[in-house]
This record gives sequence, structure tokens and C-alpha cells, in this order.
Amino acid sequence: MKKTALFFFILCIINTYSFAQDDLTTTLNLMPWPKEIKANDHQLTIDKNLTVSIHGQGQDRIQLAAVNFIRRLTKRTGVFIDQGFPITDKKGTIIITFQKRTALNIETDESYILQIKSDHITIDAATDVGAIRGLETLLQLINHNTSSYYFKGVTINDAPRFVWRGLMIDVSRHFQPIGVIKRNLDAMASVKMNVFHWHLTDDQGFRIESKTYPKLQELASDGLYYTQNQIKDVVAYASKLGIRVIPEIDVPGHASAILTAYPEYGSHQGEYTYEIERFAGVFDPTLDPTNPETYNFLEGLFTEIAPLFPDDYFHIGGDENEGKHWDANTKIQNFKKENGLTTNHDLQTYFNIKLEKILNKLGKKLMGWDEIMTPTMPTTAVIHSWRGENEGLPKGGSLISAAKTGYQTVLSNGYYIDRMLSVKHHYNVDPIGNVKLTDEEHSLVLGGEATMWSELVTPTTIDSRIWPRTAAIAERFWSQQEVSNLNNMQLRLKDVNFKLEELGLTHIKNRNVILRGMTDNQDISALLDLSKICEPLKVYSRNQGGTEYKSFSPFNLFADACVVDAEDAIAFNTLIDNFIYAPSDTKRAKILVYLSKWATNYERFSNIKSNPKIEPLAALSKHISDFSKVLMNSIIQKRLTKAKHDALTTQLIALNQPYADVEVMITADLKILLDYCTDHYLVN
Amino acid sequence: MKKTALFFFILCIINTYSFAQDDLTTTLNLMPWPKEIKANDHQLTIDKNLTVSIHGQGQDRIQLAAVNFIRRLTKRTGVFIDQGFPITDKKGTIIITFQKRTALNIETDESYILQIKSDHITIDAATDVGAIRGLETLLQLINHNTSSYYFKGVTINDAPRFVWRGLMIDVSRHFQPIGVIKRNLDAMASVKMNVFHWHLTDDQGFRIESKTYPKLQELASDGLYYTQNQIKDVVAYASKLGIRVIPEIDVPGHASAILTAYPEYGSHQGEYTYEIERFAGVFDPTLDPTNPETYNFLEGLFTEIAPLFPDDYFHIGGDENEGKHWDANTKIQNFKKENGLTTNHDLQTYFNIKLEKILNKLGKKLMGWDEIMTPTMPTTAVIHSWRGENEGLPKGGSLISAAKTGYQTVLSNGYYIDRMLSVKHHYNVDPIGNVKLTDEEHSLVLGGEATMWSELVTPTTIDSRIWPRTAAIAERFWSQQEVSNLNNMQLRLKDVNFKLEELGLTHIKNRNVILRGMTDNQDISALLDLSKICEPLKVYSRNQGGTEYKSFSPFNLFADACVVDAEDAIAFNTLIDNFIYAPSDTKRAKILVYLSKWATNYERFSNIKSNPKIEPLAALSKHISDFSKVLMNSIIQKRLTKAKHDALTTQLIALNQPYADVEVMITADLKILLDYCTDHYLVN
Repeated sequence: MKKTALFFFILCIINTYSFAQDDLTTTLNLMPWPKEIKANDHQLTIDKNLTVSIHGQGQDRIQLAAVNFIRRLTKRTGVFIDQGFPITDKKGTIIITFQKRTALNIETDESYILQIKSDHITIDAATDVGAIRGLETLLQLINHNTSSYYFKGVTINDAPRFVWRGLMIDVSRHFQPIGVIKRNLDAMASVKMNVFHWHLTDDQGFRIESKTYPKLQELASDGLYYTQNQIKDVVAYASKLGIRVIPEIDVPGHASAILTAYPEYGSHQGEYTYEIERFAGVFDPTLDPTNPETYNFLEGLFTEIAPLFPDDYFHIGGDENEGKHWDANTKIQNFKKENGLTTNHDLQTYFNIKLEKILNKLGKKLMGWDEIMTPTMPTTAVIHSWRGENEGLPKGGSLISAAKTGYQTVLSNGYYIDRMLSVKHHYNVDPIGNVKLTDEEHSLVLGGEATMWSELVTPTTIDSRIWPRTAAIAERFWSQQEVSNLNNMQLRLKDVNFKLEELGLTHIKNRNVILRGMTDNQDISALLDLSKICEPLKVYSRNQGGTEYKSFSPFNLFADACVVDAEDAIAFNTLIDNFIYAPSDTKRAKILVYLSKWATNYERFSNIKSNPKIEPLAALSKHISDFSKVLMNSIIQKRLTKAKHDALTTQLIALNQPYADVEVMITADLKILLDYCTDHYLVN
Repeated sequence: MKKTALFFFILCIINTYSFAQDDLTTTLNLMPWPKEIKANDHQLTIDKNLTVSIHGQGQDRIQLAAVNFIRRLTKRTGVFIDQGFPITDKKGTIIITFQKRTALNIETDESYILQIKSDHITIDAATDVGAIRGLETLLQLINHNTSSYYFKGVTINDAPRFVWRGLMIDVSRHFQPIGVIKRNLDAMASVKMNVFHWHLTDDQGFRIESKTYPKLQELASDGLYYTQNQIKDVVAYASKLGIRVIPEIDVPGHASAILTAYPEYGSHQGEYTYEIERFAGVFDPTLDPTNPETYNFLEGLFTEIAPLFPDDYFHIGGDENEGKHWDANTKIQNFKKENGLTTNHDLQTYFNIKLEKILNKLGKKLMGWDEIMTPTMPTTAVIHSWRGENEGLPKGGSLISAAKTGYQTVLSNGYYIDRMLSVKHHYNVDPIGNVKLTDEEHSLVLGGEATMWSELVTPTTIDSRIWPRTAAIAERFWSQQEVSNLNNMQLRLKDVNFKLEELGLTHIKNRNVILRGMTDNQDISALLDLSKICEPLKVYSRNQGGTEYKSFSPFNLFADACVVDAEDAIAFNTLIDNFIYAPSDTKRAKILVYLSKWATNYERFSNIKSNPKIEPLAALSKHISDFSKVLMNSIIQKRLTKAKHDALTTQLIALNQPYADVEVMITADLKILLDYCTDHYLVN
């Protein structure tokens, strides 16, 4: 899949350079970082005369990409470019050359060579998709001084490390309109991701129109589903971006919605009312694998749905089936005995093998979550590795064993972005790591997918849960394994994060929307400052305790305004680290700026006319202000009394509690600072 | 069209109350203001037990409206309501009763009666659409104290003044994706508008898929058009909101796009290359009304497009045809002579009458801009009055004369929101005003439409050009003529404006997006403060001078971040008015707060690392800061030297110039303040 056309190979031999990441990463905000990059002294000014020309056969994708490139360049620079479309008669300022329009599959060549000289820029690629990847890199190279915008001179020789660089979006728990999907596809393309895995069905809703089985959308979607025309539209849109679309119809578990529409295929013995599930969790409704009609139904459904998705792969889910209804059903138990199926895993494998035959007839490879990897499952299936230490598996989960057994495999364990963990956590997860694999095994590790499960996200908040962390994961999938400097990644990510806004993503702007809504459009500065040091509760703990979220519960609360990697908390953490390592007056002054901002929070908070939505934050605001005030004064006065020390210690415990579904992310650093004060300023 | 079912009539007689607007408008943020409203002492608390029940036949629209009502109530209050969907077995807390599912036309009964008591709420309406209007009113009645949200007790008896309350969106000059259209439909419904006029074609693009004439979208849309499925989807979406959709295919002028695809129907004599127009303006390409094939083409096109739009009305444009190509074409000139058509108006009427026959066969009424109203045009046509004093017509334009002649008519003159005039300007325009009309004539004045022409707007900015001003125009169309207090309207509009954000409108949040983009994500406070006193150049003057915008030029510049009715300018204006009327220390202090904010602007602006996009604003920032500093000090010191007076006078002239396509909106008030200082503090 990383075969490069001969002329590239020769080019590479002629120009045998390879620069380490650190040489240029401080000046260039590229993400994902390219395979090889070399700076030169050239610089091409962006002015109204800039033109783009395209050379190659089959230009539908690249024409659109070039137009969008010009639009984004225009927005970024404000330059009134004369030629709003690629020119056709001669070579442009930017000359795009490619060999062929490519099919989208795991063999697609996405490599490109980008050269920026003073008078022109070339992008050379074996395929149109490679050229598209090059255009995204070029957009990341726009620079400016006071009087003009320009491209900085570089030569880049780039190709991905993994062929499968995916994002999964769950549209069942919370439906996501087409606009949400499209803007996230744009964002994916901007960081060179190439697989959109569409989790279309689950207990909470069946989201795709079936003409064969219309009750699926009529009874099991609350009216929130994609028409087949919309599906085709999204698939075509993704294809233009060089993104494959893999549908997932999750069976035999996660089937409450399917069985709400067609209860006759369920496993429950006797009367049972299946209903669209409103809560989050793992539920019992399961298809009956012993009923031949179940397969007729699935064959009918797959035969209708598969052609909407031209991709070779088709995801059948297969996860989290606890088999309770199977165990309680004597007919199913008898079937197992009759067919020598000892465990429920055996029964599910029986089911999976039947599905694989259906899918093969439709020209599809079966893909499923790693529960499908049983001793009897043929290695023609594709293993989507999701479980790891949290689910009682060894570190790294099933990915390596799948590859060693001979399965193609894709990693999502470690990339569950809905767990609301730091970008550093995900960036540190390497699909292969230090494991030694044969070339054959290595080629079976296709890549990975970030997974956006949507129990706790809505169209308003989903972007801020996907981005910017997924950009760093995209780099993990595209860039060489050695590209791993966390601090450098975070610097570049800051720029990428902001630039994602130009694609219409709402991850930044919707925070204030939520806060305005919470305050009835009053001054939000106090809440905004709080949100910069708080993060939503992690690892599904938000859904515990007194609050039990349903799919239609409010998700525009304070926790929804907060994001992972809270900006002031991150900056404060760096500051405290530096201060403790080498204290200085400058750093002390910066610390006081933060403490003083937090010290006034409660006063500002109290100026907001209260309402039931912000009332639960009063205690949080007060604790932070009280603590910050005392600590600030102790630092200014270089004096901490025992009484104040004890009070602060008690308050820290309070700050470590969750408030309104958020956790305060500065408490560890406040503790360090308190300890410093204790060591240096404590008086009796 | 305002026929009310008998039981309502009786109800009205029993409860003969009618409260003046001013009694409640200071406490209730209703917009449009209802016909009759009476407060009571009841109050219904919103808690998790709230339910909605629906009683009436044909519930598809009202079910969706009720679900959306519950979702918005949930978002607004944060209450975890148990029943996320209407209940079916018994009466709910909110009881919706209607008589029938209505067709959407100019006879649709949209009246409703809303009663809020302590233990339940009733909405009674003749039709489902009336009930939907009532639900929007109810959402505007949500109130809160510190501990709970509640509905304030009222009885409202409401019905619209006009049956046609429209918004036109031009999607030709700048294409607007489906998501933009849908969120604006939601916003329209929230202020009870009921006609979406879709200006689908113009010189700059043909935006609707034709299967009969596919070159229209293939050659004349740049790939930016709606598929027929998308059109159907939008029409269905609008219908669910009780909104009619009127398509406009603009002919015979504004036809550059059509003729780019099918030049054979053009009027130019001899060789001519028609091209998609990139600039704004009035252009020559015109269909040939003397060519029988033109009518075959239009009949084919209309026959295909008309069924996509179930509405009775079909808009054929007909505006701004200057007939240059007609005058220069001997064949057309001969045709005119042969057929006794003296003027080009006669020729166009000949064309319009032929089109009306085609449309009548398709079950449609022909509607056109007011140029179609010629002495020979049958009164079966519908006149869309757009020209007024600016176009050399008498004040009020053609609306009244159309009604007096016997045409149905709709007013847009005075509601051209793309002219970027103040909300007060539009709110003051009454379709009928003081003109005496017979009942028959009165009934021919159907209502009005705000028009959003899109030469200067993109999907990023269009919401901020439509809203909130269109909400005030919606009130003009719905509410009684006496509802006209400007200050009170502005108070209520402030609340409506903010609440529109809950529907996903971007009119507030995209300002910061543009400013972040301009600064490369630096501190935007200086630009934000500037944007609050600046407005984009008005009445199409932006497109003059050195800058000539094309459709693909950048529209994310400072002028695009600015909006009409700049908030600080409005507030400052009120403050200065009050101060001059009755000076006081408090008011003086408030004035100094503004001046001090502006005085520091240039310092903050200078801290931004400059780039070519913000560089043109440096002079603006500096002038404002310099002026504010000197004036502020004069007020503080109560001393203004002659030299300073002269300098300020000169600077004011500079501030009256346009900067980067904006005008500074505080200069008149600064002049008043300077005059005050001159009168009171001038020393030699």
C-alpha cells in the first residue's frame, strides 16, 4: 500500500535527505509532521496573481480540492485573488501534477512531493489523493509578515505510516445531522485522515433509511435518520476528500432499536416489549442467531445498504453481547447443544461466519470489534481492537495477537476520545510500539481509529470532543513513529486547533454559546475563567451518581462547555513545573496573575443574576476564589500561618470533589504551590 | 384568511379584553407581540414531571413541534424532563388541542389561544399550525428565579395581521448550504414567519438540479446547487414548521447563468460568450422572448421544478431587465413591430403572459417583481413590490397602486436587509400605513418579505445580516399596526436576538471567529471593541471604490465581523441623548467609561502582531484612541483648549471617512459631546 511510482523512487534516491523533526518543528506548524522535510531560502509571495494549474487525468476530486484550496487561502490571507478557479491553458503559480485518479482502498498511494520555490510551487503525486494531501500541507505553510502573506520555501517528501487513519462517529446515541458529518470530514481531510467509520445503529436508534424494512426508521429512529440519498451524498463528499466510508450495523447485540422495529428476530423467550433505549449502557436485546429468518432479514438489509458504500469493508459490530437472553432461552440453548456450540462465543462465531458469507457475496470484507476474534473465526475477518487493560485484557489489547494470528486489524484501544482523556495520553499510544513483527504481520496492522461514542455529546458539543485531540491522533497514524515529542506536538496543535475553525467547526465558538445560554446572556467572564481550569468528568463517570442522563437530557450544561486539556490548567501546570524547578520573580509574578484572576472569580460570579443552571457552580467558584486569595496573599507576603495552611489543606480536599459534572484541573498544582509555601513561608 | 373558528369567536366575546402593548412589554419579551394578552397571578413551575399531550387529528407537524419544544425547554432550563416525547394516554401539563391539520396557503388559520394556569397550560387552535405558533409564544414565556424555571401566567388570544410574512434568501450570488437554510427556517418559525422565498437563480449561478436540462447545474453552478431531493427535504422541513416555500426562477433578465448553459435562448445578436457572472450588478444577458424555443425550454423547466414546490405561488423574477440586448437585436426589434409591441415593457409583458399560461397549467399563480405590473398585465399575477424612492418611484412604491388595481401584492420595499440599515428603519415601514383602502383592496395586500440579497454575504455571515433585524420585521407583519414603540421593540429584540442562538444561528458567535482569523488567534479585544462601534458600509457602497468584490473574494474581513446596529454605538447614543437632555455626574461617569475603553484601543491594537488583514485598521484604531483620550481628559479636567478643540474637530472629519469598508457609528455623538465641551469647558 505504500508503493510509490518509479519516478518518486528515483527522486528520493537523488535527493537523499531526511531531516529530524526538531529542526523545523519550532517554526512550522505542520500536523501531521511529514516524512521528510528540508527548508530552503525561497519564499513565494501570495498576491492577486496567484494561479493554480492541474495536470493529470481524472480531475473531479482535485478540481474541487483546488477550488477549496483557493477559497481557504483567500479567507486566510484576505487577498483578492483574480483567478478563483484553476487555470487550464498554462502552468500556474502552483502546479499540481498527478498520474491517475485513484480508487479508495488500503492500496491507495497517498504520497506526494511538495517543492516551494520563489516563483512557483510544485506538487507531484502518483494519485489525485496524494496531491490533495499535498495541498493540505501547503495550506499549513502559509506565513506572513506585516505587509504580505507568503509560502516559506521547503521541499517535502511525504507518505503515511499507516493506510487506515480513521475516525468513528456514533450517530445512534445522539443523531448528528449531515452538516456535522461533513464539517468533520473536512477537518479529517485537513489532517490527512482517510477513513470515516459511521456507527449507524445501536440500542438508541437506527439511523439509516431502509426501503426493504421501513419500520427500522419509522419505529426505531425518532425520525432522526439519514435517507439513502443523504448517505450517498456523504459518501460522495468523503470520496472527494480522499476519505473512505465504512458503515457499521451493530449486531447481534446493541440491537434494541432493530428489535423495536422487528421484534420477531429477537432472542427473548416469550412476550417482550423492545423499546428504543434512552439510557447509556450495555443492554440485553439481541438478535436470535438460531432463527433462519434473522439471516434472511440481515441479508435483505445488507443487500440494500452495502451498495450505498463502495468501500471493501463492512463493519458488523459484534461487541458487548452478554448473551443474557440467549442463556434464558431454551430454544437457543437446545440449538447450541445440537450444533456443538459450547459457549455463547461459539454461537456468536456461528452467527458471524454466516454474516461473513452474506457480506462476501456482496463483495465486502467483514469487520468487527475484537470480540469476533475467536479460535474458529476465519482470518478473512478484520479485527477492530478496542478492549485493553480497562476491559481486563493485556496492555495493547488484541491488536498484536490479531496480526500474529493472521487477521487484518485496526486499533482503537487508546483512542477512545469520548473518555475525555488528555491529548498526551492518546498521542503516546503507538499501534505497534516496540513489538517486533514480521513484515507480513506488520502489513496486517492497517492503522487505527479514534472513536467518538455519543452518549454524552450533541451536535453542539461533538466538535469540541473530537477536536483538537484527533489531530494529534491523526499525526500518530500518518507520521513516523519517531515523531513523538509531546511539548512540540502541543505547540503545533494549538495552531491546528485554531485553524480548524476556518472549516466551520464549532469546537471553539460553542463554548461561549453554552455559557451565554447558562447566564441568559449576562457577562460570562467568570464562567469562562472557570471553564478554562475545569474538565468534564472522565471515563464515563459523568453518567453516575445522582444524575442519570438520557439521550434527551440537557447537554448544554457547564460540563458541556468545558473541554479536555483545559487551557489555563495546562498553562498553569507548565508554569508551576518551571517555578518549582527554578523559582524566579518573573515566574512568581505570572503565578500571581493566575491566582488573582481566580481570586476575583466569585465576586464576578456573584454579579450574575442566578438561575438553577448556574447555581450549582457557586460553591466551585467560591472555593477557588477563597483558596486563591489566601494563597496569593501568602506568596505576596511570603508568610503562611499554620491556621491558613490548615484551612487551605482542607479547601484543597473540597476542590478535589466533582462539581456539576466537572473536575478542577489545577488542584495538583495548587497543592505543589501550597507545599512550596509551607516549606518556605510557614510561620506559627 | 383571518377567519376564526366559531368557538374562538365565542370565546373572544366572553372574554372581551384587550390590553395595550405597554402594560406588559416591559416584563415579557414576546416577539412578535400578540394581538391580545392578559396577565394573571398564576405561575406554572417547570420540573421533571412536565408533560405535553396533543389532541387533534393529523399530528405529524405538531408531534415534531412538541418534541422540539421539549428539547428547547430542556436546553433553556437544564431540567431533566422524564418524558422526552408527548404522552398519549392522558392530558399533559401542556394540553395542545387543534381541529385539523391545515394546508399551507394564504387561507391558513394561524390563530391560537394560550392560557397558563398554575397546574396546566392549554393551547387551543383551529389548526396544527396555529398550535405551533402558540408553542413558540410559550417558549418566549419561560421565566426563572434562583431556584426554578416557570411559565408566567397569561391568557393570549393571538392571530396575525398579514397572511404573508416572508424572508427571501438569494442563494445565487453566494450559495447557501442546506444547513444554513434549515437553521434560518427554524429562526423564521420562532418569530412566526410563514413564507420562505428561495431566490434560486441569477446571473451568478443556477442553484437547482434539472434532470431535463442538466447543463444548468453542470455548467452554471460551479458545483454549488441543490439536488431535487434536497429541495424536497427543505420543503418538507419548512412545511413541518408551517412555512410555505416559494421558488424563484428569475427571467428574462438576471439570466447569465441560464444562458451559460443554454446560450441558444439568449437575446444577443450573433456570437456571444455567456459566462457565470462573478461581479455584483445588473447585467445584459437576457432570454429571447421572441424565440418560441425559449418557451418550450421554460415550460420544460417549470414542469419539472413546479411539482417540487407544493405552494400555489411561483416567482418568475422579471426585474431589472434593461433590454440592451433586445434593443441591439434586429430580429427582436422586428418582432416587436410585427406584434404591435411598442416598448420593451410591452415585450416583457408579452413574455410574462406566456409564462403565466404555462404556470396556470401547472396549477401555479405567477408572481413577479413589480416591473411586471404593466397596463396589459392581467391582475391574476401577483406583484412583489420592491422599488421605492431609491428607484425613482413615489414613497411606498407600487404596493398600494397594485392593490388598488386589483393585484394581490407583497411588500419588500423598505425591508431590504442587505442595505445594512438600522432595525428602526425597517420597523417603521408599515405595508399600509395611513392609506385608506377598501376591504377588498386591503385583502389584496398579503403582507411582506424581508430580502436577503447575497452579493456580500457568505454562509459564515448571512445569519448576522438576517438576524435580529428580521425578527422586528416579523413583528411588523404579525402584530397589530399600533405595536410600534421603537425603544420597547429594541428591548425585546435584545432578548430574542440572544435566544436565536439556541437554534444554531451563528449571528453572534461568528463575529469572534472572523476576528480570531484576522489576528491568527491573538487577543481580539481591541478589534472586538472596534467592531462594537463600526458598521459595514451601507446601501451597496461597500462594493465601490478601490475594492471590487467578486463572488469568491474574501468576506471574512473586519467589515464582515461588524453588524448593523453596533451595540456600543447604540448604547452610547442613548447615553449621550440622556446626558445632553439632563447632564449628571452618573451619566458623565458612564461616558468616561466608554471614552476610556476607546482611549486604550490603539495600545491594545498595537500589541497584536500585525498582518495585511488588520493593518488597514491601525489608522482607525489610532484616530479613535487619540480622539477619545483628549476628549476624556477635557471632560475630567473640565477644560478644553482652543488648540485641542481644533485638533478634535479635524480628527472628527477623519473619523467620518470609511475605513476598511466600515463606518464609525459614534462620530455624531462624539460631535455632540465635543460641542458640549466647547460650550462648557472651552478656554483660550
